[in-house]
Amino acid sequence: MIKHLVVIGTGLIGGSFALAMKRKGLVERVTGIGRGRANLEHALKLGVIDAIGEDVSTVVKDADLVLAAIPVGAMPGLFRELAEALPAGAILTDAGSTKRDVIAAARAALGDKISQFVPGHPIAGAETNGAGAAHAHLFEGKPVILTPLPENRAADVDLVESLWTACSARVARMSDNDHDRVFAAVSHLPHLAAFALMEELADRPDADTFFRFAGTGFRDFSRIAGSHPEMWRDIALANREALLGELDTYIDKLESIRGLIESRDGEALEALFARARQARTNWIKGKYA
Amino acid sequence: MIKHLVVIGTGLIGGSFALAMKRKGLVERVTGIGRGRANLEHALKLGVIDAIGEDVSTVVKDADLVLAAIPVGAMPGLFRELAEALPAGAILTDAGSTKRDVIAAARAALGDKISQFVPGHPIAGAETNGAGAAHAHLFEGKPVILTPLPENRAADVDLVESLWTACSARVARMSDNDHDRVFAAVSHLPHLAAFALMEELADRPDADTFFRFAGTGFRDFSRIAGSHPEMWRDIALANREALLGELDTYIDKLESIRGLIESRDGEALEALFARARQARTNWIKGKYA
Repeated sequence: MIKHLVVIGTGLIGGSFALAMKRKGLVERVTGIGRGRANLEHALKLGVIDAIGEDVSTVVKDADLVLAAIPVGAMPGLFRELAEALPAGAILTDAGSTKRDVIAAARAALGDKISQFVPGHPIAGAETNGAGAAHAHLFEGKPVILTPLPENRAADVDLVESLWTACSARVARMSDNDHDRVFAAVSHLPHLAAFALMEELADRPDADTFFRFAGTGFRDFSRIAGSHPEMWRDIALANREALLGELDTYIDKLESIRGLIESRDGEALEALFARARQARTNWIKGKYA
Repeated sequence: MIKHLVVIGTGLIGGSFALAMKRKGLVERVTGIGRGRANLEHALKLGVIDAIGEDVSTVVKDADLVLAAIPVGAMPGLFRELAEALPAGAILTDAGSTKRDVIAAARAALGDKISQFVPGHPIAGAETNGAGAAHAHLFEGKPVILTPLPENRAADVDLVESLWTACSARVARMSDNDHDRVFAAVSHLPHLAAFALMEELADRPDADTFFRFAGTGFRDFSRIAGSHPEMWRDIALANREALLGELDTYIDKLESIRGLIESRDGEALEALFARARQARTNWIKGKYA
């Protein structure tokens, strides 16, 4: 049982974690902190949080668990605030979409308290955001990755894992390197690819002619282009190295498809599309799960 | 009222058109033709068609309306078969995803009968296919593009339009050039982009590590990578010119995003993502409709 949970960033992820903890009776009291006053007041009204915290240093003093659910670019500043204030008994965890940079920032700021930081990443984004979008079931069946540090106490990592498991999430542990490499490919790159198409079309003088006839394939392909610009700016910069590599690989693949079309190589095109289709069918059927 | 509708290619599109016509009482009798015997027998059993046609030339003899719903690469062969057999009173229409090449093939084969061909394109693809996936409501609210020819009789174009309208589709007319340019951007390119990502990931020796953690964003982005390989091979080749241009534009946009990440230009990245998000919100809200 967590007596006092502090959620820093009371949006979709932070708010949904708070609601899930409350629903399972795993927390006594939740304080929310965030940049937007209106969002915090909305969260309070909806019962997502029990109190609004004005100041990180003050509010974490008696916290048992602190969840940092803010864009990864805002993590270094938060860690500097927590360096002094985080009490010895508290566990700090996060919901950042990248891990190497968040861990580096934590190491740079927290000193010995680095052992209290259990890095995490729930995979439950949506193009909605804010406390109003939060719900207790958001994490059900969703993956949550933990990338524990050598300095962590095993009991702390187990506790964080048990809380996510209580949200009905599927928890996996891996290294921060593996995490960033995997998500560059299956999440960050697709987001860039969707943002790129949407922005490029919107920028055309006759954009309306194009959008008017875009169908359901376009709708699904472009859904993640509705994601939060600041959050994705931070992710792109934080996972820069892996993402540049993925972009190069992807552009190479597009160039090679371009070559097949240019040379009218129907056989190779069909084979490539068939491999893609088979892989997706396998994935949907859970072959890779 | 259509006395005899012949559907060549009794798959998702052809089968759904037949079912919608029947449901509205607009057709007396439907004959299905196709390459797969099992699919045709399934279509017959499901009541999608009333008879299986063995041979195009024979079956179209007393047809009022012939719908060609086959991959665009198979259209030239069909048009050659129809050149002799298509009776003077019949209207021929199609459901091909590209229009310039289909029209060129029709012109090359049909001679004077070109006036009987009303080119069309219902935008209602799905990653399912076959007569078993057909349903009478497939076209409800979906766009159908007609690209009439100067040779067409106005009454024939109006009739084809009225049938699609009876399916509750939203019919629009445009030139074949505009059609191919628009769909290269909002349909054909996204399909290539999804096929490319899926095939590239599947080809990695550690593909399972990546797919295991792919989430809902990836699922939606990649849905159209489940599309039919042969159909998309034909589309890529048929709309080659427009598609090469779109691929170049898209690769340029990805390269420019790559440059912003490389130079750590967070401001420009956020602005680009914000423009994309705004465009998608506008599109979803129907601003471009």
